[in-house]
Amino acid sequence: MKAIIPFKKKDTKSRLSPLLSQSEREMLAERMLEDVIHAIDSSVVRKYEVLTEGTLDDAINGAIRDVQTPILIVMPDLPLIQSRHINEVVGSSADVVIAPGRGGGTNLLFLREPHTFKVQYHNTSFLRHVQIARDRGMSVDIYDSFFVSTDMDVPEDLVELLIHGNGAAAQYLCEIDVTISTILDMDTL
Amino acid sequence: MKAIIPFKKKDTKSRLSPLLSQSEREMLAERMLEDVIHAIDSSVVRKYEVLTEGTLDDAINGAIRDVQTPILIVMPDLPLIQSRHINEVVGSSADVVIAPGRGGGTNLLFLREPHTFKVQYHNTSFLRHVQIARDRGMSVDIYDSFFVSTDMDVPEDLVELLIHGNGAAAQYLCEIDVTISTILDMDTL
Repeated sequence: MKAIIPFKKKDTKSRLSPLLSQSEREMLAERMLEDVIHAIDSSVVRKYEVLTEGTLDDAINGAIRDVQTPILIVMPDLPLIQSRHINEVVGSSADVVIAPGRGGGTNLLFLREPHTFKVQYHNTSFLRHVQIARDRGMSVDIYDSFFVSTDMDVPEDLVELLIHGNGAAAQYLCEIDVTISTILDMDTL
Repeated sequence: MKAIIPFKKKDTKSRLSPLLSQSEREMLAERMLEDVIHAIDSSVVRKYEVLTEGTLDDAINGAIRDVQTPILIVMPDLPLIQSRHINEVVGSSADVVIAPGRGGGTNLLFLREPHTFKVQYHNTSFLRHVQIARDRGMSVDIYDSFFVSTDMDVPEDLVELLIHGNGAAAQYLCEIDVTISTILDMDTL
């Protein structure tokens, strides 16, 4: 089994631009990836591949098309994820396990038979992925974690990182002096 | 052991006013309370008290001051909570269990010795409650649940309710024709 992590460094996380410069957003994205890889590295999965090319769906569907062993797809902006989460998700007996993100996202997607599945990450992908699994007669587990649900899209999300984080991404926010007050005092909130 | 639920019906949930009228917000608040009570009723706790008077901290601190048996404090706007969550929280061996809400909130607070604790629900109460417990030498468990973290403060939160909910509050949104599109198409988002 391995994990795949789609990752885009350039022009990423534009909704954080009221708070962070482009180079800071790119640096944050790298640090978050580091946290995600650390969690995978410390889990039972250990093997991973970072996908850096193409659109999200194409990159992932290309990567899983011929894979006959289980795959875990991990979003790269989950700095609060821990190895425990990964172990619990891949330890499920279901055919498909989905950890929802805020707003109907899919933050972790475990596929027991990747070659029979096509991902669709746009819009409310959570509902889509549940439907795709059911249409194929696959059993679905919803993995319920606040820390895994917390991706970093908008400035308020960074409050969660400052409150709950202790990895590379949280450390980076300290380095560039982003505090809870900095974020909550922003005019645009 | 019992659960206490602080509840305010009047002038509640003002940040939902771009989407819901005052009477709709009050009705939603009641339906959410119904969902919370249903979860408690189906859990090992079963006994509960709804606190309707005073400010949040005063009402709760008054209610727990002389209590020598464990207490679970449940916020009333958690329509995605299930009895499983409550059983897991009160089954912890820690002195204090906190289920964080978004933005540093405290959505569930389990106190093994309520009379030795004073709650402080304003601002980032999560950090405060962790600190209060540590200052008293109490062990602290963080309970990690997306569904419990999801309280209903702003219109986007109702998207989570529509995607993941199947209780009285979710049903109410259907009754008044609030859909995911209604919310995402709002000008103010």
